[in-house]
Amino acid sequence: VTDRAGRAPETAAVIAVGSELLGSFRSDTNSLWLASRLEASGIRLVRKACVGDDSSSIGAELTVSLGAARIVLLTGGLGPTGDDRTREAVASRFGLSMRTDPAILAALRERFAARGLRMPAINEKQALVIDGSRPLPNPRGSAPGTWLEVNDRVVVLLPGVPGEMKGMFDELVLPEIERRFGGGRVHRRVLHIAAMGESSVEERVAPVYAKWPGREFTILGGAGKVDLYLSAEGEGDAAGELLDAQTRDFEEALPGRIFGRDDETLESAVGDALRRQARTVATAESCTGGLIAETLTRVPGSSDYFLGGVVAYSNRAKQDLLGVRGEALERDGAVSESVALEMARGACARFASDFAISATGIAGPGGGTEAKPVGTVWIGLAESGGREQAMHLRLGRDRHTVRAWTCRAAMEMLRRRLLGA
Amino acid sequence: VTDRAGRAPETAAVIAVGSELLGSFRSDTNSLWLASRLEASGIRLVRKACVGDDSSSIGAELTVSLGAARIVLLTGGLGPTGDDRTREAVASRFGLSMRTDPAILAALRERFAARGLRMPAINEKQALVIDGSRPLPNPRGSAPGTWLEVNDRVVVLLPGVPGEMKGMFDELVLPEIERRFGGGRVHRRVLHIAAMGESSVEERVAPVYAKWPGREFTILGGAGKVDLYLSAEGEGDAAGELLDAQTRDFEEALPGRIFGRDDETLESAVGDALRRQARTVATAESCTGGLIAETLTRVPGSSDYFLGGVVAYSNRAKQDLLGVRGEALERDGAVSESVALEMARGACARFASDFAISATGIAGPGGGTEAKPVGTVWIGLAESGGREQAMHLRLGRDRHTVRAWTCRAAMEMLRRRLLGA
Repeated sequence: VTDRAGRAPETAAVIAVGSELLGSFRSDTNSLWLASRLEASGIRLVRKACVGDDSSSIGAELTVSLGAARIVLLTGGLGPTGDDRTREAVASRFGLSMRTDPAILAALRERFAARGLRMPAINEKQALVIDGSRPLPNPRGSAPGTWLEVNDRVVVLLPGVPGEMKGMFDELVLPEIERRFGGGRVHRRVLHIAAMGESSVEERVAPVYAKWPGREFTILGGAGKVDLYLSAEGEGDAAGELLDAQTRDFEEALPGRIFGRDDETLESAVGDALRRQARTVATAESCTGGLIAETLTRVPGSSDYFLGGVVAYSNRAKQDLLGVRGEALERDGAVSESVALEMARGACARFASDFAISATGIAGPGGGTEAKPVGTVWIGLAESGGREQAMHLRLGRDRHTVRAWTCRAAMEMLRRRLLGA
Repeated sequence: VTDRAGRAPETAAVIAVGSELLGSFRSDTNSLWLASRLEASGIRLVRKACVGDDSSSIGAELTVSLGAARIVLLTGGLGPTGDDRTREAVASRFGLSMRTDPAILAALRERFAARGLRMPAINEKQALVIDGSRPLPNPRGSAPGTWLEVNDRVVVLLPGVPGEMKGMFDELVLPEIERRFGGGRVHRRVLHIAAMGESSVEERVAPVYAKWPGREFTILGGAGKVDLYLSAEGEGDAAGELLDAQTRDFEEALPGRIFGRDDETLESAVGDALRRQARTVATAESCTGGLIAETLTRVPGSSDYFLGGVVAYSNRAKQDLLGVRGEALERDGAVSESVALEMARGACARFASDFAISATGIAGPGGGTEAKPVGTVWIGLAESGGREQAMHLRLGRDRHTVRAWTCRAAMEMLRRRLLGA
């Protein structure tokens, strides 16, 4: 494997530190994420390993990694407890000493003080710095990272908490690695589709696969979502044009159904459409138990367009808080088109919103009947002008999947309405 | 760590071979499965690694594994193609030669013939056997495994296809490993704590660590949750008593704060307490956007005690749907003790529930002020009888963490109230 200039790509190794990663409860998701980031920058991951929290094991992993790769990333073991030994193990492997960094210590104390807490003495350890290394500040947690260069190798210590690790890597580590080692990049793009099954997406895009022979596409399905992975090699512009051409073909095969790409989420796509049109939304949920509202409000700034929601788990709450008529509940049952629509209308009125989406269904495992088995769901959409629509879903039998599918289907219904589809 | 006979448990290492495992799409699930099998047999996994399909890398992993463990399991790289190099790499690492085994060759030919196919020449490679090793037949596929003993180490080569690997391991490898190396089985327990930071839990349990010298405890923190991992070797009853004794010590160090163990969740603990007391709950959420209701309703059967909730994202919704007085909003602001309590009271009244929990805060990234920075949260708890309480939290600056912490803190407040704490 060489890049366009004929150079072999730079190599990296990842070591995940933590005895819990060797048990059967936890898998190491950090390494998978780092692999994708490195891959996108044209850096080849040559090994990854998980090892317990003892210094000699960490040292042995470091030795074999340094023999195999130019860049070695370690995650975990930077915390304040006696279990956390990565810093010492790395220092000891290179025969380097450690010292307390007064600025880090002060920042740690401040972090605790800001929450009205006294810093426990054990946290002082997190201010220890390996001689000759550069500390990497961690705005999301107490464990600072480390950038260390020894001979021609780069060794980077990152926290094990995924959110802290990812932020530090993207902000402080990746730009430096790309600047110094970035080879012929592989450019990737992910296209997102909601509320369709993997096989029906696959059927529709089969002609696109055929049009691009020799190119590898990957399709990955989840509960109510499908992701299409595209890739192109080469410099930015040429690769970008290739990806754009592939994207156009997929959009033609799935008209109006690709709601976003890469980091874009369905909730951000819905939010962007609402904000562009200066419209607002409310929710009325039964089987999803608040998941739709929770998902919409994951987006920073969602208070611009999300007014609120009612979780009406009991029939009485559907009547009292959403104005669903007892008659409809009795005649059609709580899981019905009429109740889904009344819930949406009720939310629209109570919150004085432009739109409201609703969901009522049987998430299981109990509550199913022959006529309405577990997985039976109705979603509704009401507009302040009076226009409305409902949709019947027959989903699987797993509670989590039913809720996740329903949530995405309801948001996708709103998104398509906003787009005039 | 020793077993009941005072021996240290035997150690194992797992090496997953296959360049595809170093990409971003696939994770190595075989190692996780092997970890749980080994753990249950009292064998301690000390490292696991993924490496590409080249001989020198496989050799280097084998060297570090042999230095760390008595048993080394390799998965993958036993197929017929040029990519499959595990057998040769292991032979070469030990300086052993290979020969074609006529019985395996005949069985491979037969396998193809049974499907009416002629065996491709490349498959002949799968009949190669390392001198001094014992082949492990593979009734599920074409790749036989290998059992090799060198000095006092056992090296086992298994196919990478999960179904083939698992069958071969359970039928041919595990019985032999248990017979020869099985110590007392390791029993594990996880204790869960909510709404406390990792370091304050660690400080309180330090005397328990000291009381059980030589025993390894692991502590893992997340947003508003801390898990303590315990382990004990030996037969069922004795190990269970050991775990119970440790658990009692941790409970004494953290009175009333351990809400569950193993698969138990905070939402199921809250649900169990409500069901036992035949009480009901409703929610009133602002910054958590529905997360508390969504979390409570993850539990099957939660409709027995969860009546519903209001997500009041706008001030108007707080007034219209929860009866919060405009006066309180103006005087104290939406993020205040008085508004948190009015929200909880309002939900209690509207849903006619026994309890209601509320949360109002600044999840960020926007919306912070000097007096109320991002991460400022008030949670409230109201009871139909009029008793109520509120709590102020000062959390970090990450939106997801603020929401998750707040959700767990509110549920924990209710759980402790239900327990009379």
